[in-house]
Amino acid sequence: MADQKALDLTRRETFKAFTPVTIRFSDTDKLGHVNNVSIASYFEAARCELFDRVLKQAALGPDIDYVLARVAIDYKRELHYPGTVEVGGRFVRVGDRSIVTGYGAFFDGACFATGEAVNVFFNLRTRTSIAPPPVLRGLLEMEIAA
Amino acid sequence: MADQKALDLTRRETFKAFTPVTIRFSDTDKLGHVNNVSIASYFEAARCELFDRVLKQAALGPDIDYVLARVAIDYKRELHYPGTVEVGGRFVRVGDRSIVTGYGAFFDGACFATGEAVNVFFNLRTRTSIAPPPVLRGLLEMEIAA
Amino acid sequence: MADQKALDLTRRETFKAFTPVTIRFSDTDKLGHVNNVSIASYFEAARCELFDRVLKQAALGPDIDYVLARVAIDYKRELHYPGTVEVGGRFVRVGDRSIVTGYGAFFDGACFATGEAVNVFFNLRTRTSIAPPPVLRGLLEMEIAA
Amino acid sequence: MADQKALDLTRRETFKAFTPVTIRFSDTDKLGHVNNVSIASYFEAARCELFDRVLKQAALGPDIDYVLARVAIDYKRELHYPGTVEVGGRFVRVGDRSIVTGYGAFFDGACFATGEAVNVFFNLRTRTSIAPPPVLRGLLEMEIAA
Repeated sequence: MADQKALDLTRRETFKAFTPVTIRFSDTDKLGHVNNVSIASYFEAARCELFDRVLKQAALGPDIDYVLARVAIDYKRELHYPGTVEVGGRFVRVGDRSIVTGYGAFFDGACFATGEAVNVFFNLRTRTSIAPPPVLRGLLEMEIAA
Repeated sequence: MADQKALDLTRRETFKAFTPVTIRFSDTDKLGHVNNVSIASYFEAARCELFDRVLKQAALGPDIDYVLARVAIDYKRELHYPGTVEVGGRFVRVGDRSIVTGYGAFFDGACFATGEAVNVFFNLRTRTSIAPPPVLRGLLEMEIAA
Repeated sequence: MADQKALDLTRRETFKAFTPVTIRFSDTDKLGHVNNVSIASYFEAARCELFDRVLKQAALGPDIDYVLARVAIDYKRELHYPGTVEVGGRFVRVGDRSIVTGYGAFFDGACFATGEAVNVFFNLRTRTSIAPPPVLRGLLEMEIAA
Repeated sequence: MADQKALDLTRRETFKAFTPVTIRFSDTDKLGHVNNVSIASYFEAARCELFDRVLKQAALGPDIDYVLARVAIDYKRELHYPGTVEVGGRFVRVGDRSIVTGYGAFFDGACFATGEAVNVFFNLRTRTSIAPPPVLRGLLEMEIAA
């Protein structure tokens, strides 16, 4: 199993899958670089792809959702237009009713930002947070351990 | 009735209703001013408010929608962060199956951009464009004439 | 020379160069599709790439800029997350003090939107619009004719 | 002096100044609510206003900047279009070379998200992080204590 302490989100080797995101001119701000909010949209692009891939496998049914509860991003160096970034994403930790994911964003091989997100499992019918169903938990634990 | 030739979208008097939009730092781009795409989002804010107001009155029912077919924006002067802009919107012309709306965007009383949009009426059940129902056409013509 | 009347922006053959843009989840809106403002940012991505390529060749010097004066976009069909779009761009017409560019945006080979932009040449020192320098005009005319 | 442990970012009373931000239709996503990335742009709007106000007083000179190093946002409830939100911001803690700020975002009086940011002081000439100049530190400590 992956040693969580060893998880270094600044290293490409931490991730098995990457989401490419093309930088747009409108992503820049008056400081001349890519705006931090645009970078948040890059992380979301990776998060959605990561969840889609695993939740499709888990075939959760229409009642279960995973609601974004927290996002944290560490900005490590400036990013400039133009180019394409790659955002690696992986499941990091599964809790009682939540899942933590980790991200590293790379340009030209160098990490310019890392991120972490917490999603809470949610029953859309009862409108309450729930424990992930066993099939999903199993899949997530496999992903974390890989 | 309003003389359409006399419609000058750069004048505040052309509009009876304005949508305030607060400029965000992330709206700027590396040229130092507000990015043209952000300004497009200001016009959309006004367009949605304009349609919501009239379509609520028309009580269209769930089958009828108005699909955005075209947007044109004329950028007349630079806009800078920070501040609040006001976007005036009005119905301009109703066609067989479409409605044209016009917009003027103001900062400190001065027009910095004008816009025009075309929306097509659409039956969500039959998936085809349609003529606006008489009640809606009547309302739109009243708005245009006012 | 290209017959301008024959320019069909919905056809891939109209363009020699395409800018890839990855769709982000945050590009969607509550109607479930990609928001029209996000699509405007795709067109800008292509416009910047098109101008950068030719203006680098023209080596204009620091005093000359090309200011965006108008953007028009025709939305032809809905676009959905996820995927990558390709936006073709080309110079269409050079005026006394302006240049018109045309764009076609494609997903899975099908055109979902076309666009046109007008940029005005501008002397940053004198703060007035200007005719494009001969070298630039020559390059633009070659691009249009190609 | 403010007891930092007592800082509850979900309460309006924690903040003395609020930045209004108008929700735009394009802020929504296909889940029907306001997208988390849009909410990140609301927090940035407040952060810029907070720093502008204090840094103007400190008259820092052109060499000193404060670089965004980290943003964390806790999403507490869904936000829907349309309306205007208010984002409260305040200085929370000043470190050796950094400053922590805290935020609370309110709609109709209820907190829908809280946030924290870390900015690092930076000398633009030497390109290194620096301790804040005494005048600035004094101002920040006064703000934190207030």
